[in-house]
Amino acid sequence: MTLWGGRFSGKLDPAAWELNASLPVDRRLADQDVRGSLAWAGALEKAGVLTPEEGALIRQGLAAVGEELRSGAFVFQGSDEDIHTAVERRLGELIGSLAGKLHTGRSRNDQVATDFRLWLLDSLPALDAALKGMQAALLERAEAGLDTLMPGYTHLQRAQPVLLAHWWLSHFWPLGRDRERLAQAAERAAVLPLGSGALAGAPFQVDRHALAQALGFRLPSPNSIDAVSDRDFAAEFLFCAALCGTHLSRLAEAMVLFSSAEFGFFELSDDYATGSSLMPQKKNPDVFELARGKAGALLGWLTGLLATLKGLPSAYDKDLQEDKAPVFQAYDTLMVLLPVLAGALRTLSVHPERMRAAIDPGMLATDLADYLVAKGLPFRQAHELAGQAVRQAAAQRKALDALSLEEYSAIHPAFEGDVFAVFDPQRSVARRRAYGGTAPQAVRAQIEEARRLLG
Amino acid sequence: MTLWGGRFSGKLDPAAWELNASLPVDRRLADQDVRGSLAWAGALEKAGVLTPEEGALIRQGLAAVGEELRSGAFVFQGSDEDIHTAVERRLGELIGSLAGKLHTGRSRNDQVATDFRLWLLDSLPALDAALKGMQAALLERAEAGLDTLMPGYTHLQRAQPVLLAHWWLSHFWPLGRDRERLAQAAERAAVLPLGSGALAGAPFQVDRHALAQALGFRLPSPNSIDAVSDRDFAAEFLFCAALCGTHLSRLAEAMVLFSSAEFGFFELSDDYATGSSLMPQKKNPDVFELARGKAGALLGWLTGLLATLKGLPSAYDKDLQEDKAPVFQAYDTLMVLLPVLAGALRTLSVHPERMRAAIDPGMLATDLADYLVAKGLPFRQAHELAGQAVRQAAAQRKALDALSLEEYSAIHPAFEGDVFAVFDPQRSVARRRAYGGTAPQAVRAQIEEARRLLG
Amino acid sequence: MTLWGGRFSGKLDPAAWELNASLPVDRRLADQDVRGSLAWAGALEKAGVLTPEEGALIRQGLAAVGEELRSGAFVFQGSDEDIHTAVERRLGELIGSLAGKLHTGRSRNDQVATDFRLWLLDSLPALDAALKGMQAALLERAEAGLDTLMPGYTHLQRAQPVLLAHWWLSHFWPLGRDRERLAQAAERAAVLPLGSGALAGAPFQVDRHALAQALGFRLPSPNSIDAVSDRDFAAEFLFCAALCGTHLSRLAEAMVLFSSAEFGFFELSDDYATGSSLMPQKKNPDVFELARGKAGALLGWLTGLLATLKGLPSAYDKDLQEDKAPVFQAYDTLMVLLPVLAGALRTLSVHPERMRAAIDPGMLATDLADYLVAKGLPFRQAHELAGQAVRQAAAQRKALDALSLEEYSAIHPAFEGDVFAVFDPQRSVARRRAYGGTAPQAVRAQIEEARRLLG
Amino acid sequence: MTLWGGRFSGKLDPAAWELNASLPVDRRLADQDVRGSLAWAGALEKAGVLTPEEGALIRQGLAAVGEELRSGAFVFQGSDEDIHTAVERRLGELIGSLAGKLHTGRSRNDQVATDFRLWLLDSLPALDAALKGMQAALLERAEAGLDTLMPGYTHLQRAQPVLLAHWWLSHFWPLGRDRERLAQAAERAAVLPLGSGALAGAPFQVDRHALAQALGFRLPSPNSIDAVSDRDFAAEFLFCAALCGTHLSRLAEAMVLFSSAEFGFFELSDDYATGSSLMPQKKNPDVFELARGKAGALLGWLTGLLATLKGLPSAYDKDLQEDKAPVFQAYDTLMVLLPVLAGALRTLSVHPERMRAAIDPGMLATDLADYLVAKGLPFRQAHELAGQAVRQAAAQRKALDALSLEEYSAIHPAFEGDVFAVFDPQRSVARRRAYGGTAPQAVRAQIEEARRLLG
Repeated sequence: MTLWGGRFSGKLDPAAWELNASLPVDRRLADQDVRGSLAWAGALEKAGVLTPEEGALIRQGLAAVGEELRSGAFVFQGSDEDIHTAVERRLGELIGSLAGKLHTGRSRNDQVATDFRLWLLDSLPALDAALKGMQAALLERAEAGLDTLMPGYTHLQRAQPVLLAHWWLSHFWPLGRDRERLAQAAERAAVLPLGSGALAGAPFQVDRHALAQALGFRLPSPNSIDAVSDRDFAAEFLFCAALCGTHLSRLAEAMVLFSSAEFGFFELSDDYATGSSLMPQKKNPDVFELARGKAGALLGWLTGLLATLKGLPSAYDKDLQEDKAPVFQAYDTLMVLLPVLAGALRTLSVHPERMRAAIDPGMLATDLADYLVAKGLPFRQAHELAGQAVRQAAAQRKALDALSLEEYSAIHPAFEGDVFAVFDPQRSVARRRAYGGTAPQAVRAQIEEARRLLG
Repeated sequence: MTLWGGRFSGKLDPAAWELNASLPVDRRLADQDVRGSLAWAGALEKAGVLTPEEGALIRQGLAAVGEELRSGAFVFQGSDEDIHTAVERRLGELIGSLAGKLHTGRSRNDQVATDFRLWLLDSLPALDAALKGMQAALLERAEAGLDTLMPGYTHLQRAQPVLLAHWWLSHFWPLGRDRERLAQAAERAAVLPLGSGALAGAPFQVDRHALAQALGFRLPSPNSIDAVSDRDFAAEFLFCAALCGTHLSRLAEAMVLFSSAEFGFFELSDDYATGSSLMPQKKNPDVFELARGKAGALLGWLTGLLATLKGLPSAYDKDLQEDKAPVFQAYDTLMVLLPVLAGALRTLSVHPERMRAAIDPGMLATDLADYLVAKGLPFRQAHELAGQAVRQAAAQRKALDALSLEEYSAIHPAFEGDVFAVFDPQRSVARRRAYGGTAPQAVRAQIEEARRLLG
Repeated sequence: MTLWGGRFSGKLDPAAWELNASLPVDRRLADQDVRGSLAWAGALEKAGVLTPEEGALIRQGLAAVGEELRSGAFVFQGSDEDIHTAVERRLGELIGSLAGKLHTGRSRNDQVATDFRLWLLDSLPALDAALKGMQAALLERAEAGLDTLMPGYTHLQRAQPVLLAHWWLSHFWPLGRDRERLAQAAERAAVLPLGSGALAGAPFQVDRHALAQALGFRLPSPNSIDAVSDRDFAAEFLFCAALCGTHLSRLAEAMVLFSSAEFGFFELSDDYATGSSLMPQKKNPDVFELARGKAGALLGWLTGLLATLKGLPSAYDKDLQEDKAPVFQAYDTLMVLLPVLAGALRTLSVHPERMRAAIDPGMLATDLADYLVAKGLPFRQAHELAGQAVRQAAAQRKALDALSLEEYSAIHPAFEGDVFAVFDPQRSVARRRAYGGTAPQAVRAQIEEARRLLG
Repeated sequence: MTLWGGRFSGKLDPAAWELNASLPVDRRLADQDVRGSLAWAGALEKAGVLTPEEGALIRQGLAAVGEELRSGAFVFQGSDEDIHTAVERRLGELIGSLAGKLHTGRSRNDQVATDFRLWLLDSLPALDAALKGMQAALLERAEAGLDTLMPGYTHLQRAQPVLLAHWWLSHFWPLGRDRERLAQAAERAAVLPLGSGALAGAPFQVDRHALAQALGFRLPSPNSIDAVSDRDFAAEFLFCAALCGTHLSRLAEAMVLFSSAEFGFFELSDDYATGSSLMPQKKNPDVFELARGKAGALLGWLTGLLATLKGLPSAYDKDLQEDKAPVFQAYDTLMVLLPVLAGALRTLSVHPERMRAAIDPGMLATDLADYLVAKGLPFRQAHELAGQAVRQAAAQRKALDALSLEEYSAIHPAFEGDVFAVFDPQRSVARRRAYGGTAPQAVRAQIEEARRLLG
């Protein structure tokens, strides 16, 4: 069954039918389609298009269809072009020709846009919860890492010592931004297209504000042509998902590095690691590699939809049918990734001794320069002198704290006996106590702030 | 001059220098770099790192450097690695070795992130104004188009008549969403990285909240590692720009179509059209084609930056130097496009008679079905019967309103003498008066709402 | 069952299992996996790792497994991690522990790369045939369009008259380039990874050249580390698919335009058009719109894979598991699109009278300039004068051939009585007879060339 | 000056002019434009459109213009819309109105497509040489690394020992594929559009095969409509560049990893490393990070152009003006990157002792399994038993070769006294001597093959 055909003498070519039919993808909107139809039936009744009796019968019928869909009793037919057709077809089987009144003043154009937005609004809370769960795992690890020093890296070179807790939290905040962006995207998605018809608006005096409220939308859309072709909400969701994927990829890249034999900072639990079909000793961080790999796919889905949208004129074109698959795939990808990553973080072992051992005295060179600054030298000169000490130590294949006092004074007389106190990473970390820094007291305040955010 | 080098015995290979130097791109941050340094000097003074005299001298020097940069008197040198180096180098020339105290506790990592965010915050208001100017042009055209009927299209097939005003407004609202997204992105960008050092935080008790306020940021960043490597703000800006580009592309596509000889709805002013080097008669809508073409580039810049970010571990890596070129290019692209498009819209001629002539009676087929609905038939059946009328008219190569009453009654007896009143597009439009519809009263209300938005 | 586990005390977390398992995607490689294993068993036998009896038993077992997979009798189990595991598991059930000898010297790393390349090599001929079918449809239409004139457009403005046949052929050649690119990509894909082990090569003296030949590859891969992580062939296929998608999108865009009421050049057959759930008169070119929309998805898959590959170091990483889904989706997309588009082209109706009517005299303005050139004026001046005629005609709202001889001579005395002969589109077309031009004789030669290409 | 304008009464709005003018980008085609015009003048002369005297004068004038452009004496004017206009304008200044005959039968549509292809064909040899230079650097390093063992990684976990030479060569072959792809792309680009006019072909009997030969093209384009709008060559170049960027990014990622303190396999020369403005000890692999970062931009340019192309109907549209910037940027990016990367590779220090130390006995677990295979056990069982040994050693925090013979025999009696000979990485490497493997003799053959390729 199709919802059109009166004007056609031929029937769609079977291969064209297969290309055109969207049921395999949009059947996922079943629940939203039924709810949207229930609300529309109510609106038609209020507008006097349906009698109260007709309205009641249609609603009962739709409730029954919804129940069949939920329970799995619903039987799709090869001739169902899409979920909207399937629901209306089944409604007709249940209540007869009265079913044919439901589509009055409505088009699949406003219907599918409504269903899709409703699906997104229904689905975002679970994604938010998954992101929050990931943040909670990071916060837990941070709370347990307040006493652990690790090397901080820039350019993947050892830079300065930081607290492990601080490092974990550096992955907490990006997810917070993701949640904020998704919440704002949800606000913007909560604008109701229903009542826009094919593009020109509804021909009856439908109260669209009431309809919006009934379906949990903030507002009805202000322009019917825009309403049926606006897919900003899908693009915005895909962007949020792609950027979130980037955050997960960056964390995953760090986890892969830090789980390598060379770094040795973390060891994955057997529950979250896999082996090799050939090499018996291998223990691979597959879950993090998959997070990294899937971030590419997330970016691809965003790019693909934007390229499709870019190619359209205004109003509805069939190209828009390609909007749902990438959104569903992106959503599912994050929903499968996030709990696994959170589990992997929660269960991994930390090797603080490997971290501590990786803090070589050279990482205190900035503190060495600061030492000279405290003695009154301009930082630029102090940086140059500390750099000379680094070079001299390297030339002698010594650690930076293994130069003698004589050697230090030869570089500059401001170097005195107390210089060796500089080479204490604990002290270095403790100095960085301005807001947002790695000093224990600053990180404790940061943890408080993070905890408040998780509520 | 570089801001490093003490530890190095060799000098950078010239080709590597060229690859590495970012001055050609980041000199655009000159003003922001000076302002950031002024604020940092103030913070160092408050923290007791600089004496009031030192602070005053540095600030005077920086003011002089800033003035040179603004006036064009500043001479860049081949050895200036980036704008930060150039400014500090010149400061040293002006005030001597005291200049070397400015970089105390600061790294280029937090400095460049601050400069870049500041640039974006400085630049977004002009973009918002350009978008608003484009909206104003659309609104003007809408106000002048309240009495003009045009064919509305879906699938580029004639669908239903709409008001020209309604069509113009369908391009107004997407730009409103763009402005909303950009405003939220600006809020999120207004988080200050300065005081995060290389990655571990500032080693002095700097009041970063005061620093944020001084530079016009909402808040200081909560985590120094995140702060130096977070480029979400750049990605988010690029997404907003790419989606805005998509909106402009869709409008442009419609303008190209409607300016063709076949549609003939619009004619561009000579001020905004170009000719052909070969074909003397050509009048081409180049400005709209360029809008369409540049939307591809905008998408590419977004994709490129996300791909770069995806490949990084946490904390600062040099790959991030690739963040600025796409942002600058995207900003400049929109800033050159928007005023031209607004000008082209404001000056084009509308041909209402061509629009009216393109509304064929077949476009009232939905109203024909609604006519039957009003007589009590279910819409689905009414749709089928109207479709039969369409098929019959097509078979006779007649317009839909040219079938006789007999022919109509033969299709269904509910078709009566009053059926021909259906074929009045004015009436069809007037029926769609629910909120967001194309009826004149609904569009007038829509114009009111749009006007309020522009303030 | 997994192909690893000896070193692990725990079991993979169920959600991590779901994330990690690739069977839903890679079961499509079943046939290739069996064939690859058959060849590997042969190679092991030749290398003396298996006795002839063992080799025979394994090959019989594999043949049985292959038969089960082909017939649908094969029962996958929830514990099958991927297709390789499933096949080896089933082999073990059939022939006992001897099955455990098959994986000697092989890793899933070289195995999956082999299967995937083999799948591509197996699948490309059908894609080539589908492209050729599309070219054949275009050629048929061209052969039938040798006598039909249509307006040629640039900037979607009427430019110069062309033969319809010439226009159809302008979509023939891009598909030829696609086929050429795919053929070269296939050559490059035909390099065998098998025998590269996990990354270091095979520990037995395997004759990889013979193995390559047995499996239909050109050559064995020259470097085992590269071999297991090289996915250039997948990226290259996706690029070819995306560019082909772009070609189909451009054709589809033209078909949508030319099928609009305003152009009216083509009418789709009912077999390849769809209707509207609301508007009874609609006949929509959905199949072409879907082609246009799916080109976006094709671009997205390319982008996604490249972004994933870009983020890797050398050698095998699990991220590579994300390589297959986009390749399969891209292949299936083209394979469903191409026959439908070919069918739609073959069955559409052409309206030559609408095309002829759209050739207005202004389109001959270049010929008007050429007329002056023939009288000895430089083209640049002739172009300017023809432009003046265009302007003058437009000011009087006249066609270009409706200016009087007096008016023409007033523009320039070189315009004489024979000027009106210029306004014959047939003549204009006939003049462009250089190779590749639109003159009937040139197009006939072009058709010959196209026919030879299709063989 | 513009090459059009006769039909226009107004002048282009200044902002629209700025948007529309392409000179800042296409002036790079100056040399190609002059050469294309020289050839066209020759073709016009042969076709009898120009007298021999006219032809000679125009060629002399063009030669003078070309000389001015090469020497820098050429003065561009604000009114030059593009390079084609600038050249024709200057020609007119030099030789008077005769210059106006040059554009006869030519359009900027075929002209710019010709210039752009010619530029690409002119520029690709230098890119090929740069890629070859990079391959030569890798080959040199490989030749010096034949005696050095290093750990091979998969999933960034230690996998199996390999020769350093083998690892270097794993980055040699991908660049070979890039060169092959670029060479094929060049073949396909060498199809001449000139003589296609605006879209309909040349109105004179131009010998386009001779024209193609004169300009170094393989063939003239077979269809004029396709010829003016085909940008496959640009897309294909951008794909080759993006994939090459991916290869460089993967190498760069490995270099960054292996230059970290934790791996310590490589140390960059001071000529190719940079420091930190804050941290005196830092030595950063910026050149490799930039390679990694720029691979994102390369991908973005490809995506952007494909998105632009996808949005077009057939024939020339102004959107195509956006084709050149990404191609120029991609080319320049590779041309600046490749020599720097080659230099960095050539000058880095290798630390073989760090590599050797990183080969722990666990990496021989596959050889341990193979040991059992040699004793007749099926590999699958051998793998399981070797895994048990790994687990037992890990539980005792011992190396794999530190289990006693008793412990080994307890796992399986096939383990005998000779088992400890397994733990010799040299022997492990030597076993993998099949073609493409890491055994010294196989790598030596590989080096021979690579050398032959470089010629």
